[in-house]
Amino acid sequence: MMELYLQLIHERLDTITRSFKDGPVKEAVRYSLLAPGKRMRPILFLLVLEAYHFPYEKYVDIACAIEMIHTYSLIHDDLPGMDDDDLRRGRPTCHKQFNEATAILAGDTLLNEACLVILNSALSQHLKLKMCQLLYTYSGIQGMIYGQQQDLYFENQRPSLEQLQDLHEHKTGCLIKAPFVMAGEIVGESQLSIWEQIGYKLGLAFQIQDDILDVIGQQDVLGKTIGSDENHHKATYVSLMGLDLARDHVNTYFAEIKDLLNQLTIDSSKIEQYLNLLIKREK
Amino acid sequence: MMELYLQLIHERLDTITRSFKDGPVKEAVRYSLLAPGKRMRPILFLLVLEAYHFPYEKYVDIACAIEMIHTYSLIHDDLPGMDDDDLRRGRPTCHKQFNEATAILAGDTLLNEACLVILNSALSQHLKLKMCQLLYTYSGIQGMIYGQQQDLYFENQRPSLEQLQDLHEHKTGCLIKAPFVMAGEIVGESQLSIWEQIGYKLGLAFQIQDDILDVIGQQDVLGKTIGSDENHHKATYVSLMGLDLARDHVNTYFAEIKDLLNQLTIDSSKIEQYLNLLIKREK
Repeated sequence: MMELYLQLIHERLDTITRSFKDGPVKEAVRYSLLAPGKRMRPILFLLVLEAYHFPYEKYVDIACAIEMIHTYSLIHDDLPGMDDDDLRRGRPTCHKQFNEATAILAGDTLLNEACLVILNSALSQHLKLKMCQLLYTYSGIQGMIYGQQQDLYFENQRPSLEQLQDLHEHKTGCLIKAPFVMAGEIVGESQLSIWEQIGYKLGLAFQIQDDILDVIGQQDVLGKTIGSDENHHKATYVSLMGLDLARDHVNTYFAEIKDLLNQLTIDSSKIEQYLNLLIKREK
Repeated sequence: MMELYLQLIHERLDTITRSFKDGPVKEAVRYSLLAPGKRMRPILFLLVLEAYHFPYEKYVDIACAIEMIHTYSLIHDDLPGMDDDDLRRGRPTCHKQFNEATAILAGDTLLNEACLVILNSALSQHLKLKMCQLLYTYSGIQGMIYGQQQDLYFENQRPSLEQLQDLHEHKTGCLIKAPFVMAGEIVGESQLSIWEQIGYKLGLAFQIQDDILDVIGQQDVLGKTIGSDENHHKATYVSLMGLDLARDHVNTYFAEIKDLLNQLTIDSSKIEQYLNLLIKREK
């Protein structure tokens, strides 16, 4: 059902990166960014706009900027100095396919250019500033980067459930909150905190399910190394609360998200449909 | 003579980073950013504003954002996967003092937060957008990152003088052009291309001198490993044209810069004074 969005996002990302100066960094950026991915964050962003009957095609650049930030974080996270992963989205990670230096620069490029994609878009000055501010606040040291730091810290130390929650709220959660709040800002939703809560709960639900899939998923379906959390001695929701309780938590979060959606005066059926797909995902 | 600027910049960088979420990444950012440095780029930015009688204190956030981008590029450039340097500004490089993961995240943080420093400043919406656009265009894949890529490429391959010029025009030159053009934009200079040319020539002169110092400088004065270019088998201006011709080039560029300054209807004596300091620098 999301083919139209996927195509729109892919084509725009293709166009944006095609204008980069030629060389290995451009190739590496395109290798990682144009790889088949779920595009969950940009799709959620466009779905919220559509639920308010906004012409979502006009905002595809903002959707792309979110995906660029997400992809930069994956490239740097996979580096030998960080998680040292070999497989991502079913293919060799960026530094495996190219080399470490190129992967560092490819990540830097995406983080750098995402801002320019927003600033060069056709939005009003006010919205450009707001979109940039929101995205880079969620991705920065108060958000995603803090989460990555905590993730590294707790490799050698067992976190409490609260600490694990704090870690994931930032590492994964912030960039899942971003599309909801950014779209909510564009449409002028007065109850913006509802979208923030939805993003918060989806971020945690998504991460718990990631942990579940890391234990039970099949490597060929998932497209990344199975049991990689355990290999890194990382605490996960599953290791802290067991598989059944972890599953319960996912279901509870999704039920709460649906309740929150019903508090908004929009037709959220398409968003719910997409969330159902996410909850049943195998990768 | 630049103590006032240095202090202004240092104090503001201190304030900006103090509000970051606590942890090793914040520490690493502050370690690298608050280390004693020349602050050449932010000083040039403030000097140009002052030459137009603009209240330069009002724009110190923009000066800081430029320095943050510069420092991020040094941290990532020093990484084991890139130039693998141990010494910077007379102290262990960021990944030596902390670790590789922290250094990667510290660089990412600076690149991420520089944008927020500009967007959260007290400038008009129009100027915020313009400053961000200029800075990130100079630092991105069409600018500095392209230069870094070429630098890595020519480690194993001898460049022509033209290729070396193209490399340095991007790697060092773009971020030296940035303060001139950004300040020129703020003051509304109609002959903006003169500042661009000045930045271009200073960038090249500065790099040639860097190459000269790498050969003849003293390690304890320079604060970084001497002969590091040769160790990396990097072609330099000195290796391509010899020491004397390299020196001639520096002098020619500086003379041309002074001619360009005289074409502007400003009192550029303080800028010239500062450039004279730069040309006589030993580190």
